[in-house]
Amino acid sequence: MPTPSDDLRWMAAAARLAARARPLSRPNPAVGALLVKNGHVIARGWTQPGGRPHAEAHALGEAGSAASGATLYVTLEPCAHRSERGPACADITSEAGLERVVIGQHDPDPRTAGDGVERLRQAGIKVDLLDDDASRGSLAGYLMTKREGRPFVTLKLAMSLDGCIARADGESQWITGEAARAHVHARRARQDAILVGGGTWRSDKPRLDVRLPGLAERSPKRVLLSRGVAPDGVTVFNDPAQISRLEGVQYLYVEGGAGAAASFLAADLVDRIEIYRAPIVIGEGLHAISDIGLGSLPEAHGRWRMTDRRQLGSDEFAAYQRIREEND
Amino acid sequence: MPTPSDDLRWMAAAARLAARARPLSRPNPAVGALLVKNGHVIARGWTQPGGRPHAEAHALGEAGSAASGATLYVTLEPCAHRSERGPACADITSEAGLERVVIGQHDPDPRTAGDGVERLRQAGIKVDLLDDDASRGSLAGYLMTKREGRPFVTLKLAMSLDGCIARADGESQWITGEAARAHVHARRARQDAILVGGGTWRSDKPRLDVRLPGLAERSPKRVLLSRGVAPDGVTVFNDPAQISRLEGVQYLYVEGGAGAAASFLAADLVDRIEIYRAPIVIGEGLHAISDIGLGSLPEAHGRWRMTDRRQLGSDEFAAYQRIREEND
Repeated sequence: MPTPSDDLRWMAAAARLAARARPLSRPNPAVGALLVKNGHVIARGWTQPGGRPHAEAHALGEAGSAASGATLYVTLEPCAHRSERGPACADITSEAGLERVVIGQHDPDPRTAGDGVERLRQAGIKVDLLDDDASRGSLAGYLMTKREGRPFVTLKLAMSLDGCIARADGESQWITGEAARAHVHARRARQDAILVGGGTWRSDKPRLDVRLPGLAERSPKRVLLSRGVAPDGVTVFNDPAQISRLEGVQYLYVEGGAGAAASFLAADLVDRIEIYRAPIVIGEGLHAISDIGLGSLPEAHGRWRMTDRRQLGSDEFAAYQRIREEND
Repeated sequence: MPTPSDDLRWMAAAARLAARARPLSRPNPAVGALLVKNGHVIARGWTQPGGRPHAEAHALGEAGSAASGATLYVTLEPCAHRSERGPACADITSEAGLERVVIGQHDPDPRTAGDGVERLRQAGIKVDLLDDDASRGSLAGYLMTKREGRPFVTLKLAMSLDGCIARADGESQWITGEAARAHVHARRARQDAILVGGGTWRSDKPRLDVRLPGLAERSPKRVLLSRGVAPDGVTVFNDPAQISRLEGVQYLYVEGGAGAAASFLAADLVDRIEIYRAPIVIGEGLHAISDIGLGSLPEAHGRWRMTDRRQLGSDEFAAYQRIREEND
């Protein structure tokens, strides 16, 4: 019998599989699934491009009749609704002869929302619903769109060790090195949309695409925060709150500049800050974030926690997650 | 027979012992010494408060007749000059019956400068002079005063993740947490002098002392970078270059503000930057470093390398060393 800590480890593995689905599973959530029997993985699945097959269907298809008696670990509650695109996962999962199903997250989609669990239990399968960190993290964009009606927002900043994103005259190429810039392209490839402010758009003429071999087609939707007119192929908003209008966008990457960064922070619409920090001093330069309307220093504390940190060549990468009740 | 890598390991251990001597050994350099026989440490020494006994004398005194046939690892060339304060270490080391002496650094003091090595060799002792990183690092202040006629300068900055040292109205208490602030006091206790700029002096009224139990007496000399009049008990300079006038100061700690930091950086008089970075966003605030006269971004690169990094509570500590020929 797997212990609760075994369950967490298998679920973390399923969450890592889910990462493979991001972002090509859209409009569906990126889900991961593992079939485990006698302590061994017998099949794996993740949401396929375009959203079908779902992760459970993918894994069960791989296992075939071997699924009988196995435990399914799946990061999100199996869907309970049939659609013209395929049967409900709760049904096909019920019919696979599984002994147990361990679910990472309750699905807030009203078409499932507990019905998936219920249908499995009615079929006599033991079901455990975990609400664990790994599955929650891997579904951050989906859960945010369902709960808050907006994408999960990552603010990316590339800065000197003293917090400058450019020299005073705007020179910003380059602050970080090649490894950091390649990392940014890999991060872009995981997003559904990228946003920059109007000033950055005009001064840097950023391409906002993914320039990595094999990933060029993943270049996300481009969004501009500006009061101006939309350039061709670009969505324009004049207020960060309008990100809730972005259809099918679970993950939004805000790439600056300082004004756009400040607007999102002031509206408390940043969920994660990713900083690439070069070992250089700029001094008087353009600073990463303009006025966020901070009332006092104590207000600034307790909002961010460093959750990831690594070295990329001579640059440091650090990620800070917004501390909120639902993802803490 | 110890291998060259054994020698480096023993020397690194001697350099760690040397740290115990800092800063109370002043005006003498903080030196460490180890006596090793058959692969075991038989005695240890470091420069005692006020500079005497020297590290070698301290270790040899601890070993007594057991020193015969041992190898002495010492971070700095044994002194060749007698003084009214005691015999030359080269002499007492020659008479201890040692088999071998391994020296970390050549002593640039003209009263020794090779004569220490020479005297040991004349006494028939095998001598190896290493010039290794650990001994060089532990003698950074001493070597800087001898070679450049000025102390080794550490610039300390406590900032938000976006590079602010205060809110726009000057509020700066607190950006970092207790662990980081205690670390700063421990770092102060290792310095010979602390400098702040005139603006910081007037606005923060900093005590610049060491507020750690048992270390209060170590509070270093206080120095002000200002065009104003010297307050009681404080040395005043109006130009960073004047630090060469500081007598008996091997290590200078520059604690800000942004103007003093920039003056030292612009004059290329900073050897190490130590940053305490809190996981908070300030936005429009006082930035850590004002104008350093940077001509272009490429000029900013290749000057700093991260050499230390640790977590202090929720804050991050990072140290960057100036890349120069002599300490690279």
